[in-house]
Amino acid sequence: MKLFTATLATLCFSALAEADQGGGRPAPKPSPEVQEVTPQLYAYTTELLFGEVWKREQLAPRDRSLITLAALVAGGQTAQMPGHLKLGLDNGLKPSEISALITHLAFYGGWPNAMSAANVTHTVFTDRGLKAEQIIAPPSAPLTLDPERETQRKAAVEAAVGGVAPQLAEYTNEVLFGDLWRNTDLTPRDRSLITVAALTAQGQVAQLPFHLNRAMDNGLSQTQAAEVITHLAFYVGWPKAMSAVPVLKDVFEARKTQG
Amino acid sequence: MKLFTATLATLCFSALAEADQGGGRPAPKPSPEVQEVTPQLYAYTTELLFGEVWKREQLAPRDRSLITLAALVAGGQTAQMPGHLKLGLDNGLKPSEISALITHLAFYGGWPNAMSAANVTHTVFTDRGLKAEQIIAPPSAPLTLDPERETQRKAAVEAAVGGVAPQLAEYTNEVLFGDLWRNTDLTPRDRSLITVAALTAQGQVAQLPFHLNRAMDNGLSQTQAAEVITHLAFYVGWPKAMSAVPVLKDVFEARKTQG
Amino acid sequence: MKLFTATLATLCFSALAEADQGGGRPAPKPSPEVQEVTPQLYAYTTELLFGEVWKREQLAPRDRSLITLAALVAGGQTAQMPGHLKLGLDNGLKPSEISALITHLAFYGGWPNAMSAANVTHTVFTDRGLKAEQIIAPPSAPLTLDPERETQRKAAVEAAVGGVAPQLAEYTNEVLFGDLWRNTDLTPRDRSLITVAALTAQGQVAQLPFHLNRAMDNGLSQTQAAEVITHLAFYVGWPKAMSAVPVLKDVFEARKTQG
Repeated sequence: MKLFTATLATLCFSALAEADQGGGRPAPKPSPEVQEVTPQLYAYTTELLFGEVWKREQLAPRDRSLITLAALVAGGQTAQMPGHLKLGLDNGLKPSEISALITHLAFYGGWPNAMSAANVTHTVFTDRGLKAEQIIAPPSAPLTLDPERETQRKAAVEAAVGGVAPQLAEYTNEVLFGDLWRNTDLTPRDRSLITVAALTAQGQVAQLPFHLNRAMDNGLSQTQAAEVITHLAFYVGWPKAMSAVPVLKDVFEARKTQG
Repeated sequence: MKLFTATLATLCFSALAEADQGGGRPAPKPSPEVQEVTPQLYAYTTELLFGEVWKREQLAPRDRSLITLAALVAGGQTAQMPGHLKLGLDNGLKPSEISALITHLAFYGGWPNAMSAANVTHTVFTDRGLKAEQIIAPPSAPLTLDPERETQRKAAVEAAVGGVAPQLAEYTNEVLFGDLWRNTDLTPRDRSLITVAALTAQGQVAQLPFHLNRAMDNGLSQTQAAEVITHLAFYVGWPKAMSAVPVLKDVFEARKTQG
Repeated sequence: MKLFTATLATLCFSALAEADQGGGRPAPKPSPEVQEVTPQLYAYTTELLFGEVWKREQLAPRDRSLITLAALVAGGQTAQMPGHLKLGLDNGLKPSEISALITHLAFYGGWPNAMSAANVTHTVFTDRGLKAEQIIAPPSAPLTLDPERETQRKAAVEAAVGGVAPQLAEYTNEVLFGDLWRNTDLTPRDRSLITVAALTAQGQVAQLPFHLNRAMDNGLSQTQAAEVITHLAFYVGWPKAMSAVPVLKDVFEARKTQG
């Protein structure tokens, strides 16, 4: 990791602005306005965030796009969505998967954020000439979730929520886990990734142990989980990422003991 | 609760788009852009959120509009405000009550969010041809809060805040509770509803026990309190609603023991 | 502290709107739209927030601008930024310091918020005719942080983060503290102020003890720290300010015992 200074940064711009970092596309970079007003931030962005973090092999570019988009949607940050929607498509996300991500995050980040995201996405999809048949995943039988784990999960929801807010418990069991999580337009691992990202983006660590365990049950490795939080530190800020670290630690240790 | 699939959803649109769900007004529904990009979300919105949740009798439509607007204002979500301001007026909120809601939430969600909300509201009120005399509540003597409870509350603020940040304690006692909460342009129950919604929307559970108790002292029933959180789950996301559930549980149990 | 009523507020507007509160500039005030829709909020803003809070001598106007801008950037509230950027420049913030604030908060409030802030700032700087040489701080050797404290801090990061997310620990040590905090375009006290404000604005109290202690090591007095939270109550809402109070209490007491 190199140190950056404003002077160094200024020297680097002209070279970087023209650079093509492989794959036939210019590397993502902030607008000239950002470069002019905050040259140091521009340097961190091009050299550190896009020049190094996004290229780390611990997490695939498609996974990074999933969690970045999830953080933007859950945080209501529409201004950065067009760029990251395009990057996500370039990184291999299917339009139907982006559609499913927004729908999933209506539940995990609230309806208003999902509605705003859908409107931005419509513009990007239209610009790319995407058709409805590419956006709508083909019909498919819903997934069957592991019956034993589902029984445990339902019992936990009933115990914690059922007596206090019975309809909320029912929606949780019937709509979220009985319908949304069973939809095949995203894999369970993808759903877990964006759920973990949405929880981290909102600073909601209370549900993180459950969803981090679920993510690892769905195939996320320990190295990948750590890299998710490292990547998100840049998109949701260090404080929220740091607050997630003790949860990771506890979950990693508990799973080691169990295994 | 029916299960939704993308196929079913697509079939339902044309029928729903034209539907008039009673009361002489078409039911609220998302934009065609949302329908095109996220048909599944569109289906959840029209069938579940507006087709079922908003119609549940556990909470009146006017109460639902109050907490939805409070969540939008406290979350800074201006894009969804015009639609929900109009729905709120249709659900019986007076313009002076919406004005009072924004002023109240300047304190409970921060000045910037309130300022942005006021600007959006100005546009909606102008569109509806509302005049200043409808917006400004008629002058009225301030409410007298229960003296015994006020003495307890002041003592608690002094003990917790007075020694650390004396001016913050004074503003809390003199401005928030000495002035804002005594203003008659909203009933105490309405103020409690929007305060609980603002706390939930911001994921700030620390003050929730005090304000949930106050809400119930101000007339909110246990069933209504649970329905507030159930409704808000859709507008602030499941994680923040779920984090409020243990607080509800504790408050419900403590009040049962006391009663 | 006077009580406000809608009637009183209405009477006050015409006088206040023309008032020049010293210093040759009209006092900041909300738009006529805010006045029309929420006259009570307008009165609180002109009489209490700008008429009293901003003038309290416990914190300099430049410090108040720093923490207000930090709260706006970390909260993604672009709508209020132009006014507060201009006020900040008028209160003595240098363009290079505003640039440094945005860069600092990319790390403490996330990249998307910083990018949006940079774009707004570009417009304000252009309007004011500011040139690149005023925006970019002159090159300067990086600060040397206190070696003993740095050793302790690094050890704490290694212990808490290193074993779980080693790359996040490395970025924290090498980029945040090894580079960003050592940049001379903001004083350490200024960096601490905006970090504390960003943590408070995001409701992230977990890192507040460390950063409040650091702020006081960097020269913030106890009275100033309390006033920071009092001022922020208006900009981030009472709930988040109130959640910071117990942290202040603990830190103040721990430092008294140590001293």
